[in-house]
Amino acid sequence: MAQLRDLKDELDIVIPTIRNLDFLEMWRPFFQPYHLIIVQDGDPSNTIGVPEGFDYELYNRNDVNRILGPKASCISFKDSACRCFGFLVSKKKYIFTIDDDCFVAKEPSGKEINALEQHIRNLLTPSTPLFFNTLYDPFANGSDFVRGYPFSLREGLPTAISHGLWLNIPDYDALTQLVKPRERNTRYVDAVMTIPKGTLFPMCGMNLAFDRELIGPAMYFGLMGDGQPIGRYDDMWAGWCAKVICDHLLLGVKTGLPYIWHSKASNPFVNLKKEYKGIYWQEDIIPFFQSIALREECTSVHDCYIELANKVKERLGPIDPYFEKLGDAMVTWIEAWNELNPPPPAQTATVAHPNVAMKN
Amino acid sequence: MAQLRDLKDELDIVIPTIRNLDFLEMWRPFFQPYHLIIVQDGDPSNTIGVPEGFDYELYNRNDVNRILGPKASCISFKDSACRCFGFLVSKKKYIFTIDDDCFVAKEPSGKEINALEQHIRNLLTPSTPLFFNTLYDPFANGSDFVRGYPFSLREGLPTAISHGLWLNIPDYDALTQLVKPRERNTRYVDAVMTIPKGTLFPMCGMNLAFDRELIGPAMYFGLMGDGQPIGRYDDMWAGWCAKVICDHLLLGVKTGLPYIWHSKASNPFVNLKKEYKGIYWQEDIIPFFQSIALREECTSVHDCYIELANKVKERLGPIDPYFEKLGDAMVTWIEAWNELNPPPPAQTATVAHPNVAMKN
Repeated sequence: MAQLRDLKDELDIVIPTIRNLDFLEMWRPFFQPYHLIIVQDGDPSNTIGVPEGFDYELYNRNDVNRILGPKASCISFKDSACRCFGFLVSKKKYIFTIDDDCFVAKEPSGKEINALEQHIRNLLTPSTPLFFNTLYDPFANGSDFVRGYPFSLREGLPTAISHGLWLNIPDYDALTQLVKPRERNTRYVDAVMTIPKGTLFPMCGMNLAFDRELIGPAMYFGLMGDGQPIGRYDDMWAGWCAKVICDHLLLGVKTGLPYIWHSKASNPFVNLKKEYKGIYWQEDIIPFFQSIALREECTSVHDCYIELANKVKERLGPIDPYFEKLGDAMVTWIEAWNELNPPPPAQTATVAHPNVAMKN
Repeated sequence: MAQLRDLKDELDIVIPTIRNLDFLEMWRPFFQPYHLIIVQDGDPSNTIGVPEGFDYELYNRNDVNRILGPKASCISFKDSACRCFGFLVSKKKYIFTIDDDCFVAKEPSGKEINALEQHIRNLLTPSTPLFFNTLYDPFANGSDFVRGYPFSLREGLPTAISHGLWLNIPDYDALTQLVKPRERNTRYVDAVMTIPKGTLFPMCGMNLAFDRELIGPAMYFGLMGDGQPIGRYDDMWAGWCAKVICDHLLLGVKTGLPYIWHSKASNPFVNLKKEYKGIYWQEDIIPFFQSIALREECTSVHDCYIELANKVKERLGPIDPYFEKLGDAMVTWIEAWNELNPPPPAQTATVAHPNVAMKN
C-alpha cells in the first residue's frame, strides 16, 4: 500500500481541558509536528500549562464569548462538549480530538501505537458502508474484499469520521461503571471497520478524528454541563447527528483502531447525575434518529443540519423543553460556523476541472 | 460468564466432501463427541474413508435421490452446495458445517482454537442487530455495552447464525485470487460482532454454524455446479436469503471468531469459470435483496422463504431463466424440508405459557 501523507499542515489537534497538559509529554514524538487547539473549560483565570515545544493556540471562556458574542450561548461550559469550539475556529481540513487522560497505548507486541497515524490512514482510505466485508477493512495492508462483495461497490465512499477505541478503562455509562467497577478493556482487536449505512453507533469523543470539510458542521457537541439538565451525551449527540447525515450524503464512518490508553475512570456517582435524564431520553432519541429521512434537496452538511435542528424541535421538543433549546442552539452553531468559515469564493473559469487536473 | 452447554446431543456437524476425511484427525479432540453428517458429492461409487472412532452417517447421490425422490432436483451435484442436504436430514437443533480443507487454527498465543466451542458460545448468547456496539460483542468475557447504548436494547435478540473466519487462505473470488495470488490472511482479529439489521454480508459456508430451529429452512444453498450456469455462489445465496429473513424476524447474525486454518486455495482459473456469471448477476441480486420488504403476515421462516422464492422469480427471472428455475427449486426445498421435518404436534392446553414457566 502506498505511503500516505502525514497531513502536518492539514490537521489540527483539539484538546478540551481544565488542567495542565502534562499528558502531552508522552505524545510528544507523535503530536509535536502538529498544531494544537486547546479549549480551556471552567474558570478562565486559571492558567493551563502546556509543555514546551508544542505549537498551540488556547481559548478560554472569555475568548469564546469575545469571538462568538451572543452566539457563544451554543458552546457548553463545564463539560467536554466545549471541544467543538476548537472545530469551529480551526482552519484545517482534518481534526483529531483527544482527552487529556488518554495516553499512548501499546500493541500486543509491545510497540507504541501512533494513534494519529492510524486515524490519518482511516480518513485517507475509503469506507464501505453499503455492504459488509467480513475480513474488516479491505483497504488495510494484507486485506481485500471477500468473495461475493459486489464489484461496483469496491471503490468505496469518502471517509468522514474515524472513531478510535480505548484500552484499560472502557467508555462505560455510570450504571455499568457502578455495577462493574473493576472491568478493564484488555482486548486488542486488530481491526478497522465501516459502520454500515442505516446503523447508528455510540460515538465517543475521547479519541476521534474527522474530515472537517466533509462533516465539520455536523460535529456540534450540543448543550451540556453548566445550566443544562444533562451531561456526558455531548459526543453521543454529535455522533447520532453526524451518522444520519453521513448516511444521507453517502459518506463513511469507521471505528476500531487506533487504541489509546484511557488512564482513569471518571467518578460514576457524578456521572450518574449527569446521565440520569439521558438514560430515559435516549429511548426516544434513538428511534427518532433511526426513523429520520432527510429531504433529497439537502445536499450539503449545512442543509442537513438545519433540517435536523427543525426535526429535533418538532419531534423531541414534546419530550422536554430542553430539546427546543437544543434545536435553537443547533441553528446558532451553524450561524457561528458560517461566520467563522465563510464559503470560499466561487471558482473562476481559469481553474481546471479537478477531474482533468488529476490526469496530470 | 456462566459455563455454556456443549450441545453434544443437540448439534450435528455437516461435511460435504469428495475425498477421504483425513482432515478429521486434527479435529478429533474437538469433534469426536459429536455426530457427523457426511454428504458425499460426485461419483457415488467412490468410497469415502472416515477415520475410526467418529460417529457418522454418510449420504451419496444415490441416497439423496432415494430419500427425496423427484424433489432431489433441488440438491446440487458436483458443488459444495450439496451440503444443505445434511441440514435437511439432521434432526438436531444446531448445525456446524465445515469444509474438508479446513484445519485447526491457532491463537496468536499458540493455543489451538476450538472452533466449535466458539460457535456454540456465539449461538447461545444474544445478538445485537438493532444498534452498534463499538467494543464488539457485549456478551464476551470482559466486555459490555458502551456508554450511549440504549438500555431497552441490551437484552439482545436470539442468534440464528454464527459465521466464522479463515486464517491463511482468505475467501477471495477468482479475480482477487488471480490478481493477488500470494496474499494470505495473517490478521487474527479477536472479535465477534453482530451484523446490523438491514445490512447484507457475504456468508461463506466454510466455517459456519446456525440454529436449525430458528433459521434452518432458509439455509438452502441453491442450484449450483453440474448442469447449472453458476457455481461458488451457493453460500452467498443462502446468506443473502437468510439475512433478509433474520432481519424480518428479528434474529441475529454474528461474524468474526472462530478462525479455522484454510489450507489451500481452490484453482482460480476453474473458479473464474464458475463465478463468471455471478459477477454480473450479483450487481442486480444485491439491490434486489437490499430492497426486499417481506409482508408482516410472514411470521415463520417457511412463510418468508416461500415469499422470497416468488419475488426471486418475479424480479430476478427477467435477468436470466436460471432464476425462474432457482425460484422453483426454493419451493421444492421447502416441500422437502416439510416432508423430512414435519411440524411437531400442536401444543396441548396442559403446557404452561412459557412466560409463566420462566418465572419459576
